[in-house]
Amino acid sequence: MTHRVLRRAGIVITGTEVLTGAVQDRNGPWLSEQLAALGVEPAHILVVGDRPRDIAAALRFMAQERVDLIVTSGGLGPTADDLTAQVVGEFQGREMTLDEPLRGRIAEILKPLAERHPHLDRDAIEEGNRKQATIPAGSTVLEPVGTAPGLLVAPVDAVSEHPPIVVLPGPPRELQPMWERALRDGSLHAAVPRGQVARVRTLRLFGIPESEIALTLREAHRAGVEMSQLEVTTCLRGGEIEVVTRFEPAAQPVYEAFEGIVAGRHADTLYSRDGSTVDEQLAVLLNGSTRRTVAVAESCTGGLLLGRLTSRPGASAYVVGGVVAYSNEVKIAEAGVPRETIERHGAVSEQVARALADGVRERMDADVGVGVTGIAGPGGGSEEKPVGLVWVSVSDSGGSSLTRSVRLPGNRADVRDRAVTVAMHMLRRTLSG
Amino acid sequence: MTHRVLRRAGIVITGTEVLTGAVQDRNGPWLSEQLAALGVEPAHILVVGDRPRDIAAALRFMAQERVDLIVTSGGLGPTADDLTAQVVGEFQGREMTLDEPLRGRIAEILKPLAERHPHLDRDAIEEGNRKQATIPAGSTVLEPVGTAPGLLVAPVDAVSEHPPIVVLPGPPRELQPMWERALRDGSLHAAVPRGQVARVRTLRLFGIPESEIALTLREAHRAGVEMSQLEVTTCLRGGEIEVVTRFEPAAQPVYEAFEGIVAGRHADTLYSRDGSTVDEQLAVLLNGSTRRTVAVAESCTGGLLLGRLTSRPGASAYVVGGVVAYSNEVKIAEAGVPRETIERHGAVSEQVARALADGVRERMDADVGVGVTGIAGPGGGSEEKPVGLVWVSVSDSGGSSLTRSVRLPGNRADVRDRAVTVAMHMLRRTLSG
Repeated sequence: MTHRVLRRAGIVITGTEVLTGAVQDRNGPWLSEQLAALGVEPAHILVVGDRPRDIAAALRFMAQERVDLIVTSGGLGPTADDLTAQVVGEFQGREMTLDEPLRGRIAEILKPLAERHPHLDRDAIEEGNRKQATIPAGSTVLEPVGTAPGLLVAPVDAVSEHPPIVVLPGPPRELQPMWERALRDGSLHAAVPRGQVARVRTLRLFGIPESEIALTLREAHRAGVEMSQLEVTTCLRGGEIEVVTRFEPAAQPVYEAFEGIVAGRHADTLYSRDGSTVDEQLAVLLNGSTRRTVAVAESCTGGLLLGRLTSRPGASAYVVGGVVAYSNEVKIAEAGVPRETIERHGAVSEQVARALADGVRERMDADVGVGVTGIAGPGGGSEEKPVGLVWVSVSDSGGSSLTRSVRLPGNRADVRDRAVTVAMHMLRRTLSG
Repeated sequence: MTHRVLRRAGIVITGTEVLTGAVQDRNGPWLSEQLAALGVEPAHILVVGDRPRDIAAALRFMAQERVDLIVTSGGLGPTADDLTAQVVGEFQGREMTLDEPLRGRIAEILKPLAERHPHLDRDAIEEGNRKQATIPAGSTVLEPVGTAPGLLVAPVDAVSEHPPIVVLPGPPRELQPMWERALRDGSLHAAVPRGQVARVRTLRLFGIPESEIALTLREAHRAGVEMSQLEVTTCLRGGEIEVVTRFEPAAQPVYEAFEGIVAGRHADTLYSRDGSTVDEQLAVLLNGSTRRTVAVAESCTGGLLLGRLTSRPGASAYVVGGVVAYSNEVKIAEAGVPRETIERHGAVSEQVARALADGVRERMDADVGVGVTGIAGPGGGSEEKPVGLVWVSVSDSGGSSLTRSVRLPGNRADVRDRAVTVAMHMLRRTLSG
């Protein structure tokens, strides 16, 4: 919705395993966020297989689209089918050449590997070493994190309408530190000069349909907010609505007016005005000045709520633990649910959710307990208790509790994930009073 | 490595939220697998924002690359910024036109929504309804799963070198059933005729480095296997090696010779010759003729092992439940770990892993118990017990047990995920004897 002031970049992800869906691409989204933070707008993420002609076509496409920078990931391994460096070299008009000092540095990295695995084939290792040190002449080398060097390959004069290309390895644990180091040490300065950094603000809402936000956008326009100065993207993400707004620094007052209208219309569902996630907010609430501990007893979510709560470093300070009470016997013996409560109301019921929350809190001596029980499907549903019905209860040691049922759409994985999100929000509400 | 006999397709994913990394793309990988199963080879997955000119450029690129089919996802919503149908219509030379019967069918879908939410703006709903029913003239409509219809848009004669374009909605829970139904009812027949279906075979190995497989490929070549008839992709995936081979049906004997060499060289680490995952194998082992039940006590993995074991439908038949024993007190009180074992050996130790496995198995009356304890990081490591050290123990009611430590690389999430995979494999080994 706004006119473009930003530089644009294209991202090329190579790898048949990504193209065929065997492996989820983590580099495209990561690089996209990195570029955006530098004021470079991602224009395309293009996934291609390991075939040289497809990689070359991808580069050609991006150059035609006049991006200011191309970043590639993958295809830098030691084997002969890893061809990205060569394809990029040809594209930029540069011959491949063995960089002897680089070969030596990679050999140093390989030494301990060869020592640990004496049965590995030495010729194969040396061949791979030479292959990884053979780079387009005149490129800037980004030192290896694993064994593959990254590259910054500018075009030779004859093809100077091409953008510079940053060539990175495929494994995220090599790509990410390499990119960050190259930014710090200035290696990428020629390719990534700081543009005018667009401001990006994120609002998060939980518990309303996306169409309500569409209405609010129109309302803001009617109220005289110059929406043409804001690029607003709304999206539904695991049951939450995320409203991301990009704008030039001069449009700050316009954004503030817009945010004010959202806050006014959606006071009860807008839970984050600074982009913080419910996970981050919970960590702050639990780990704050009045630290509170939490214990969980979960049935249909089968450990996913505990897995999410413990995904943050330092979670052991406030997550005591929990019980995955899949069978009724475990609900009774390990989570303190009275047998007669299950017999009278069924395992998926308000009463059992409360008993799970109370039981695990007491047994594990936590300040807050969470109980989750529901029907994730695909089997096990009935007319009265259909697939997707989930009861969540949060109780605290002061005796107050919040218990609620939801009907969640989707398949087994959707229901489980969404139920975890509902529980996270109910816990947040309880903790924030 | 093999010459092309397959038809090729391009996949265009639209959506600023995907491009910017806010949302992970699930449609590209899914469509890619679907197309491959139909004998159509995915050539590119191209992610672009919601801008019409970027979507048009993506279509132009794919047509230039002479793909036989384009599939798009996203941009079919009720709001004015959802422009995919219009851009595709223009590209194929077709005017946009309101499909009145389609408008009526969508209105029927919207009715219950409007009734449930009487405060919603009726004008906005009707405007969205008309927008979603306005389609390129002469397209084939794929009936809505949500409110958005999909489309099959062939080029008009003047641009007949363009491939047909299948236009699908963005939410996976709409896209997937729509695609499957359209294949069944023949709506896509003009776009996806059955090609010669390539065979795809997958081998899975656990516990060797990828370089060893590279060596085996060379070994197979030396042994006279005509590797040029096979397209082999190896990839490292969560600590496992996946070897995917595509070949024409006539090359079946070549593939079998190759598989025989892999099986001979890697007998101890090749655990799947039919592509089945460790999750699938475990479900069969636990749920087979001699059903065995499992209980888990996990510390550093914080619920993720239980979450993974319960992710399959029907898991409640063999997963009794488990304890997430994050604090030492919970390890002692709820998982039966003797206090002195923790005091003497520390919470991350062989002894505590065994005590967790034994304790949870006995308390939850399961046939098999699994214990996991380790240091996921980033804090909490020491020289003796560094970040990434994880002990896993599997014990059965017959009194035998398997306990092992691993040093896992990567960040907190990597260590946790990898530890879960290690535990899955140890459980598989124990159950398969």
